[in-house]
Amino acid sequence: MNSVRKCLILAAGRGSRLGRKGVPKPLLPLLGLPLLERVILTAARAGLDDFIIVTGFEGDRVRRFLDGLAARRGIQIRYVVNEEWEAGNGLSVSAARDEIKEEPFVLLMADHLVDERLLEELHAEPLEPGTVRLAVDSNTRNPLLDLDDATKVELEDGRVRAIGKELEVYNAFDTGCFVCSSSLFSALERARVQTDDTTLSGAIRLLAEEGKVHTFDIGDAFWIDVDDSHAVKRAETALLGRLRKSTDGPVSRHLNRPLSARITRYLVQSPVTPNQISSFCFALSAVAAGFFALGGYLALALGGLLAQLASVVDGCDGEVARLKFRESAYGGWFDAVLDRYADAFLLLGLTWHVFSGAGSGAVVVVGFLAVIGSFTVSYTADKYDSLMKLRFERGQPKGIRIGRDLRVLMISLGAVLNLPFLTLSFIAGIMNAETVRRIVVARRGELAA
Amino acid sequence: MNSVRKCLILAAGRGSRLGRKGVPKPLLPLLGLPLLERVILTAARAGLDDFIIVTGFEGDRVRRFLDGLAARRGIQIRYVVNEEWEAGNGLSVSAARDEIKEEPFVLLMADHLVDERLLEELHAEPLEPGTVRLAVDSNTRNPLLDLDDATKVELEDGRVRAIGKELEVYNAFDTGCFVCSSSLFSALERARVQTDDTTLSGAIRLLAEEGKVHTFDIGDAFWIDVDDSHAVKRAETALLGRLRKSTDGPVSRHLNRPLSARITRYLVQSPVTPNQISSFCFALSAVAAGFFALGGYLALALGGLLAQLASVVDGCDGEVARLKFRESAYGGWFDAVLDRYADAFLLLGLTWHVFSGAGSGAVVVVGFLAVIGSFTVSYTADKYDSLMKLRFERGQPKGIRIGRDLRVLMISLGAVLNLPFLTLSFIAGIMNAETVRRIVVARRGELAA
Repeated sequence: MNSVRKCLILAAGRGSRLGRKGVPKPLLPLLGLPLLERVILTAARAGLDDFIIVTGFEGDRVRRFLDGLAARRGIQIRYVVNEEWEAGNGLSVSAARDEIKEEPFVLLMADHLVDERLLEELHAEPLEPGTVRLAVDSNTRNPLLDLDDATKVELEDGRVRAIGKELEVYNAFDTGCFVCSSSLFSALERARVQTDDTTLSGAIRLLAEEGKVHTFDIGDAFWIDVDDSHAVKRAETALLGRLRKSTDGPVSRHLNRPLSARITRYLVQSPVTPNQISSFCFALSAVAAGFFALGGYLALALGGLLAQLASVVDGCDGEVARLKFRESAYGGWFDAVLDRYADAFLLLGLTWHVFSGAGSGAVVVVGFLAVIGSFTVSYTADKYDSLMKLRFERGQPKGIRIGRDLRVLMISLGAVLNLPFLTLSFIAGIMNAETVRRIVVARRGELAA
Repeated sequence: MNSVRKCLILAAGRGSRLGRKGVPKPLLPLLGLPLLERVILTAARAGLDDFIIVTGFEGDRVRRFLDGLAARRGIQIRYVVNEEWEAGNGLSVSAARDEIKEEPFVLLMADHLVDERLLEELHAEPLEPGTVRLAVDSNTRNPLLDLDDATKVELEDGRVRAIGKELEVYNAFDTGCFVCSSSLFSALERARVQTDDTTLSGAIRLLAEEGKVHTFDIGDAFWIDVDDSHAVKRAETALLGRLRKSTDGPVSRHLNRPLSARITRYLVQSPVTPNQISSFCFALSAVAAGFFALGGYLALALGGLLAQLASVVDGCDGEVARLKFRESAYGGWFDAVLDRYADAFLLLGLTWHVFSGAGSGAVVVVGFLAVIGSFTVSYTADKYDSLMKLRFERGQPKGIRIGRDLRVLMISLGAVLNLPFLTLSFIAGIMNAETVRRIVVARRGELAA
């Protein structure tokens, strides 16, 4: 059981290197969400639910924004004001002493984005009394790092030996994520009195000398210090790159996802909701199906292009949801059901195209089989994916995932190449064969289990 | 945490009132499974995994059978022989003393069938040291009871005050299920020495006088003492009656399930597997679809009857699986995927019937919409069912469940009444409307959650 629930976030600084249109750094938007909102929502996902935010520069504005966030998301947020925000950031931590009291707490920076699993693991193990645990990145070639600005750490036997921006010898970086006991407060006080050092690093250095700073290696987990406009770009690219899903098929991975991520970069800045994107893509597919049914090569080809466009944009609903912390079971399900309709309408349109041309009754049968195969492949996807996950975890080959991304591309290409009947036959054959294959694979899996 | 893992089952008696063709009572088949096998598998489901079986009459034969069962099911079974099986059944319990040692254990009778959840709950709470907990049925009008043969119990404040077959004043029945501490062994010894009573009831009576027999009220959970051929019939009917599922639609509940249970009563006695039944029903539906496609009223009507027959028999796979403890995730999934194919083939057959008659292209579109609606209703069923479960638990009305049972009956009636196009249109309309309704309901549920 993990008992840490308090989360202290330092959001008092001005962030002069990022000062844009007078927006205080914690409120700087990045892929549609202010930095601080992303940090808070990530921490909330990681199980923390009692937030204490230290404000300073433009504190009123930050608090007003957070009040709205707290109400919208049902999150408990308390504020601490650090009037001396222009001095060392250790003063911001000290300012929260009365709110934290004796409980252990997670300490985060408003401008450090991190992976939610990193936070989960960071505070999963109980903290040894009187110590501090620092999350460190020992990948000294991390491309997301700004070497000049990073706080370096010298580790020895899992403990911090030295820490500072100017360190010559180091083997890891300070990620700005800590789990702390209240001993940090007295260390801050001692650092201030003894060496006039008001930085957090100063206090950590003191504790490190006493062997009281343990570390947690984050492995290859994502984190980034968003300190200037270059870092903003790097962070955006990294977050967009993390949108790939393990269940993405080959077309999705190599064609749709790279394109949809570019569109998502713009969509997140608008108030468009994921469900609106799902609905839009469905409408686009229905229009494509209508073009198919119209007859004539031009309408067919145009329909094909629209269908593929809809398939690409259809990746954006989930991407926007994930980037804006708006995922919902309903949203995923709603999208899946609309996809089934879109698939079926496209195939109906294609069938009608051939049938109303010079088609015989055979077209109808092939069209039915194509719809049946497409549906059963979707119907069996959950079971197959969980089986594949098992195989993947066992290190067995994963194979190509036949799914909607491939199906729509086949329809699109078939339309553009003016081969509608061949496409229908191909889809009917491949999709039903895939379903039968899944039945066989699942049966083997069942017998092996 | 529940720590009871040992399960002692008394299977030493002859069961003279049920002696049939020299089969010892524990091996008497009931719906395809020997009584004792059903008791063991139920207890294993309830979390018990260390079985000690007391054999007596025809012990070799019982042990040979159990060795096979243990190997087949991967269950750990040890044996204790009670040579004096013709005397009181307390001797059978005493014979297991060395195997049980000091651990608490569940005590069951080989001829008492019980609900697995009853067993789970019975041993969920830790046992007070030195006591025994008896599962009692306080429904004195339980129709499964044989009043003359039942062991009556007089309860006071949750404890047993008196127990015996001849009790005049009683308010509950002994179900033959106990959780015991090893104090039962000394009570058995005392009962034998003091009153020459070698029955289990004798020892329970002694413990009851000391206030050491607590009770667990089973509520309306299923249990039955299978003591004579009338009880066998009652038990079979009760087990078959318990096959209804909460997700059964109206047609399933009132038409298909009563019929399939009758067929299942015979199927369980054969070696037919649930997956074979699923496959057979799929083949039957495919033949029905072929009849539809043939054209002509006779073939249409025959196909309709076959389709409904397949729908009825399709209930048997799950019923046989549950009665024989052969449920599997694969089996349920396999059946569902085959059902999707069967549905689609039936609709394709019907579409072809109308189309090849005098149908226009509109038939094709309606046929497609019928397939699409049928598929999406199945596709959305899981989500909808879990939502409905929630509403049901909150006491909200459940509404009619539109599903396969209703769909196939509509197809069958439409074929018999020679209304194929109307049926297709009807299914296309109802099924797609149901999917849209589910989307709306789910959205409301999501927003409410």
